[in-house]
Amino acid sequence: MKLNDLQQASWTLARRAERMNPSVIREILKVTERPGIISFAGGLPAPRTFPVAEFADACARVLRDDGRAALQYSASEGYAPLREAVADMLPWNVDPAHVLITTGSQQGLDLVAKVLVDAGSRVLVETPTYLGALQAFTPMEPEIAGVASDAEGPDTQDLARKATGARFFYVLPNFQNPTGRMISEARRAELSTRAASLGLPIVEDNPYGDLWFDQPPPLAITARNPEGCIYLGSFSKVLAPGLRLGYVVAPAGIAPKLLQAKQAADLHTPTFNQRIVAEVIKDGFLERHVPTIRALYKSQRDAMLAALEREMGGLDVTWNRPDGGMFLWARLPAGLSAAGLLPQAVNRGVAFVPGAAFYADEADPRTLRLSFVTASVQQIDTGIAALAAAVREALGS
Amino acid sequence: MKLNDLQQASWTLARRAERMNPSVIREILKVTERPGIISFAGGLPAPRTFPVAEFADACARVLRDDGRAALQYSASEGYAPLREAVADMLPWNVDPAHVLITTGSQQGLDLVAKVLVDAGSRVLVETPTYLGALQAFTPMEPEIAGVASDAEGPDTQDLARKATGARFFYVLPNFQNPTGRMISEARRAELSTRAASLGLPIVEDNPYGDLWFDQPPPLAITARNPEGCIYLGSFSKVLAPGLRLGYVVAPAGIAPKLLQAKQAADLHTPTFNQRIVAEVIKDGFLERHVPTIRALYKSQRDAMLAALEREMGGLDVTWNRPDGGMFLWARLPAGLSAAGLLPQAVNRGVAFVPGAAFYADEADPRTLRLSFVTASVQQIDTGIAALAAAVREALGS
Repeated sequence: MKLNDLQQASWTLARRAERMNPSVIREILKVTERPGIISFAGGLPAPRTFPVAEFADACARVLRDDGRAALQYSASEGYAPLREAVADMLPWNVDPAHVLITTGSQQGLDLVAKVLVDAGSRVLVETPTYLGALQAFTPMEPEIAGVASDAEGPDTQDLARKATGARFFYVLPNFQNPTGRMISEARRAELSTRAASLGLPIVEDNPYGDLWFDQPPPLAITARNPEGCIYLGSFSKVLAPGLRLGYVVAPAGIAPKLLQAKQAADLHTPTFNQRIVAEVIKDGFLERHVPTIRALYKSQRDAMLAALEREMGGLDVTWNRPDGGMFLWARLPAGLSAAGLLPQAVNRGVAFVPGAAFYADEADPRTLRLSFVTASVQQIDTGIAALAAAVREALGS
Repeated sequence: MKLNDLQQASWTLARRAERMNPSVIREILKVTERPGIISFAGGLPAPRTFPVAEFADACARVLRDDGRAALQYSASEGYAPLREAVADMLPWNVDPAHVLITTGSQQGLDLVAKVLVDAGSRVLVETPTYLGALQAFTPMEPEIAGVASDAEGPDTQDLARKATGARFFYVLPNFQNPTGRMISEARRAELSTRAASLGLPIVEDNPYGDLWFDQPPPLAITARNPEGCIYLGSFSKVLAPGLRLGYVVAPAGIAPKLLQAKQAADLHTPTFNQRIVAEVIKDGFLERHVPTIRALYKSQRDAMLAALEREMGGLDVTWNRPDGGMFLWARLPAGLSAAGLLPQAVNRGVAFVPGAAFYADEADPRTLRLSFVTASVQQIDTGIAALAAAVREALGS
């Protein structure tokens, strides 16, 4: 039999593979990578905030002082000094033994779903919620339900209505992707108490919490009831995302299962990356560095808010005023859809992400997400003017 | 309500979490990390082969020339020059568009299981097989069956008997972990033809293929029928494992689903690591470097074979003679079990991994895995002598 006479194999995809889809955002980003497009679409931190020189020094030191160990296999739990640094950073009493270093906090979501979600399990999320979490949970075939949410956060009455049998409630308390929304102190207290009385675990995902502009956000939900919560954090927004370093803090009963899932998923997070980050942060670097990111992002937010005020007059477009993070959430006038507007906006040289992708169930098609951290202030001015022109055109047609 | 009055949440583990277990090897390694123990247990490449200076140069260059991009988010598929380098390295016609960079080849196994395995799906493996694959597949709840295997490789008649409904056959053709066995040319040809006629997909995992001692192994199974195979490779054994860089090559119909699973799992493999490795290998470095690893590991294998000949005389212990890789497979005399021998061996200062963990179904309790690459030649001599003494003691008792 010649090689090319071989039959092809009968590939059978797993049922879950049918539910996986190309990311809407990925597809949009491909369009918006055309030269000349001002993109408010991506979720990319501003590269000028990356401490390149500090990384270069750390690489040189780590490879000089302990190069072979830095390039060898290492423990699935993570590099002990980094786990201790994470435990020290968190504002409640965290045992480093319960800190698991992950390959970005996205991997934390994958591991949480593997350990807690069966096919058909109910999982609750905010409305709207982080698209990457929907993608991470989907392979485990949950039934995902959105909890009604307002400007202060999730509606705890709706949460209570939907909690029966739910494996957990997934929540981004600080400057949420996509809305930029922060859950208020009152709502956190209510949420924590209500979830505890329902016996409902909370998965708290906090990649943006350090990027506050005027004052730090209220205490983490996990800090109020650590045995009832899994907490996910990340170095992507305070140092650099290209290292893929995140972490998960879980109760003693859950942490060993997450560790087993972690080991099966990729053995361990790259040793080298963990040692570099531990080296960069060891002398309090983040305390000096993060304020510079906050200041930059605040000025970018201010520029976008000012441009929106200036350009959207009389158009019935609404938007919020995030107190931190990278994103702002806007809503188009009645009759328009963000997905419908996007091609017109791209024609005018500006891109955004339609909000529909961020909803677990019924979407509000008028919403859209605008990132204010990747474009320059001048690009923000030009881009928001182009967006307003696209809205005007869409309203006229 | 005081915080400590909150009820704990009602955590419910997913069904798959019940099937996850602490790795036997991890548990053994904890014991064997005691100072003074000569360990043949781990699967660690020899750290003296890690090209630390080349990595230091590459880090400095990458951060100097394109530091911000190297620290930013990047495409889930992987860094284009690295995908092209992988396609170029492989001895059949590979479209770089079908190369997916993964966070170690362990992640490739996780993605393959997610995309191809439903709960209850049949998956076939060699007897014995790589423990990490069993761990990666288990969360998707397959029924794993072992295909009878001899010194030349899997028995294709047993394969045919067990193929009905199987999603794929997982095989490590070269210097397999745990046995060090290489599948012969004749068996590869037979396997490829038989699998194609059965319509049975093959997942070929090849982390050790470059570590041959006297001559390269026969052509990859995937090269004989690329549309019927998924191929996994790794930089862990030819450069360094602490970077966690592997890759998957899949047919056009499967690659997009693996990519979607990859994006959901950790967004992308660390940008920085991909750029560093692309930089290290770009001028043919592997062609100069890998022969030095081969020479070292061959001398270590020779030392272990010589020590076994010298020490095991009259003990009815048998072992194979691997033509590459890192591992040798031995079998104890009738009446002994490797798990039972281990404590006695550790008491005498030497450790190994009992073979039972590597079997999908019925295990041969007399087997054990010996790594010859981490210990020095002097440690090999001392350790094998101690192992023989432990066998003698066990036989006497």
